[in-house]
Amino acid sequence: MKLLVTGGAGFIGSAFVRMAISETDMYVVNLDKLTYAGNLENLTAVEAHPHYRFVEGDICDPPLVDSLLAEEKPDAVVHFAEQRSAPYSMIDREHALTTQVNNITGTLNLLFAMRDLAPDCHMVKLGTMGEYGTPNIDIEEGFIEIQHNGRKDVLPFPKQPGSFYHLSKVHDSHNIAFASKIWGLRSTDLNQGVVYGTTTDEIATDERLMNRFDYDEVWGTALNRFCAQAAIGHPLTVYGRGGQTRGFLDIRDTIRCIALAVENPPKPGEFRVFNQFTEQFNVKQLAELVSQSAASLGLKCRIDQVPDPRVEAEEHYYNAKHTKLIDLGLKPHFLSDSLLDSLLNIALRYQDRINPKVILPTVNWRQPKLASRLIERVREKEIGVVALGAGQPAS
Amino acid sequence: MKLLVTGGAGFIGSAFVRMAISETDMYVVNLDKLTYAGNLENLTAVEAHPHYRFVEGDICDPPLVDSLLAEEKPDAVVHFAEQRSAPYSMIDREHALTTQVNNITGTLNLLFAMRDLAPDCHMVKLGTMGEYGTPNIDIEEGFIEIQHNGRKDVLPFPKQPGSFYHLSKVHDSHNIAFASKIWGLRSTDLNQGVVYGTTTDEIATDERLMNRFDYDEVWGTALNRFCAQAAIGHPLTVYGRGGQTRGFLDIRDTIRCIALAVENPPKPGEFRVFNQFTEQFNVKQLAELVSQSAASLGLKCRIDQVPDPRVEAEEHYYNAKHTKLIDLGLKPHFLSDSLLDSLLNIALRYQDRINPKVILPTVNWRQPKLASRLIERVREKEIGVVALGAGQPAS
Repeated sequence: MKLLVTGGAGFIGSAFVRMAISETDMYVVNLDKLTYAGNLENLTAVEAHPHYRFVEGDICDPPLVDSLLAEEKPDAVVHFAEQRSAPYSMIDREHALTTQVNNITGTLNLLFAMRDLAPDCHMVKLGTMGEYGTPNIDIEEGFIEIQHNGRKDVLPFPKQPGSFYHLSKVHDSHNIAFASKIWGLRSTDLNQGVVYGTTTDEIATDERLMNRFDYDEVWGTALNRFCAQAAIGHPLTVYGRGGQTRGFLDIRDTIRCIALAVENPPKPGEFRVFNQFTEQFNVKQLAELVSQSAASLGLKCRIDQVPDPRVEAEEHYYNAKHTKLIDLGLKPHFLSDSLLDSLLNIALRYQDRINPKVILPTVNWRQPKLASRLIERVREKEIGVVALGAGQPAS
Repeated sequence: MKLLVTGGAGFIGSAFVRMAISETDMYVVNLDKLTYAGNLENLTAVEAHPHYRFVEGDICDPPLVDSLLAEEKPDAVVHFAEQRSAPYSMIDREHALTTQVNNITGTLNLLFAMRDLAPDCHMVKLGTMGEYGTPNIDIEEGFIEIQHNGRKDVLPFPKQPGSFYHLSKVHDSHNIAFASKIWGLRSTDLNQGVVYGTTTDEIATDERLMNRFDYDEVWGTALNRFCAQAAIGHPLTVYGRGGQTRGFLDIRDTIRCIALAVENPPKPGEFRVFNQFTEQFNVKQLAELVSQSAASLGLKCRIDQVPDPRVEAEEHYYNAKHTKLIDLGLKPHFLSDSLLDSLLNIALRYQDRINPKVILPTVNWRQPKLASRLIERVREKEIGVVALGAGQPAS
């Protein structure tokens, strides 16, 4: 089986590519424009493998994408190559536009190339659970049967995305559903939860291959932030009341989910949606889990509330279905087991690299002023290269 | 009251601007990049009016949009300035991308400028009923209460747009809803039906000001196509079985609806959706109405079925609500009354300008080949300047 992986030098992409090359017979063409430093090192172990080819380039470049599809005729395109940060998309107009134009253009480009040059190919697209927002009803996997005025239909689940980044993923989903319908393409939209963890089976024995551990306000997640804060004795900073509930999954499960999607393609013309996460937590629960695990390592953590920079419900109903990947055979890892191994101990081991100045939020969803200092810092890559991990450049 | 009208030299925009200047005290700043020839002539009657200012420029140009918002501080932005053709967006990758990037960029640009420079301003956005597709349940005005597993919520109505153009409007709607929520902007999304008619009260006495009458496959509508075909003795060409049902409205009602939205702004932070049409017809009914009216003028029409170039249900349930504008005071005109006055007689009067070669479809939704001849013709403006009307350049 041959895959074109776009963005395969990124956080999840590189872990997936390593797994695909090491554990399966798949042939992988990895197309990545290497936007941020420090990703390609993760792939040193596979770069000489006969089933691996790396191409540096941009999926927004039609001739490049066309020539790759024509030449390689992949069975699936696994599409990671998007601007991936919600706070980045909220910095200002320029960042909002860059996020939406880049993500939409790249995805449309791939869809047209598939239509013309590899129509039987299966698009596996990384979306996010954040596309759904927090409705007051159960979240289904992509579609919902609605009864209304005595009639019924199965319709796309209504989405209420919470940033220009999340909006770009919703735009992509609509474009992919339409392209699948009119051109008979196969597609799987993976609405993924928050991914945590730095290690996979392939790299557990070689720490130089460890994955990125982003904890800053732009690229990091709340869970990584709490672990970094615990490691340096900073209070864990919960945004608002901390009732914001989301789906989570271990990076080992993420890459397994993608493999399950690839190995079990949908029918031609089918647009399939999987909710890709294994457990739900709210932010306060995460802080408490980190605090308890830290205590078992002899660290004391205080939990502080800070004003929520985002516009979101701080307490809400949340119950999202996630059975389709389990039905395909996923065996989940759980956060309680991974927390010490893969998160807190890593943060502790590299605690001298943690820069407390990049943790607290400066991008505010409501704030009309430009976050000019932050823009400078992102441009100068002060933020974006502070990830922990031996394979990463030191900060 | 001061308005910034974007795309105010277009088909609907120019009719709205003429009405606003002639019938109200509104001050209008008209921003248009004049993509297609032949629109500005429609505004000769108002160009010297002290309440009117024309600016040639592109809403995708941030400094221009910012300076206009800062200088004029409009009470409302009436936003028409988008690529407006579904077949155009389906020609090939380049046209799909142009449509989506242009429409999304322009709308986001206006939203950011409003946030920073005129936060109390009301965005009135022209969307389309085509955003909804043809669900098997009643279409509500923007939102639907969903009962599910013992809980309920009012959520955005699920949309199933049928072209890259319609998708761009759905993307816009999501972006506007989000911007309204996080920045407290006021917004009205007008999901408009198919607009017909060439005359308004302002121009009934001066035919040189008559509106465009597009009948070609790219810019025209089925109704205009049937009238043009009737006028030159060509069979009326119904796509497929002709059960495709849509909402319709007279251009006189369109401009009144927009005025009603402007005069009755929503609250800060409110994203409001109106379904803007007055009657529903299917394509076969339209053909029969045209045929009957033509018969009363002594013209005989045959109705032919041709294969549907679009991917759409040829027979389906359709019942869309449209009460909110009626509640605000709209008094509809009906197609049966307008057909002779404003459509068939115009097509007959200018029958020598009708070019039968541009009527039949060459863009096919399923077709992976490039519609290369069509692209040339659009580029060379053979299509796009064939509209009828004395104010238009002769074909």
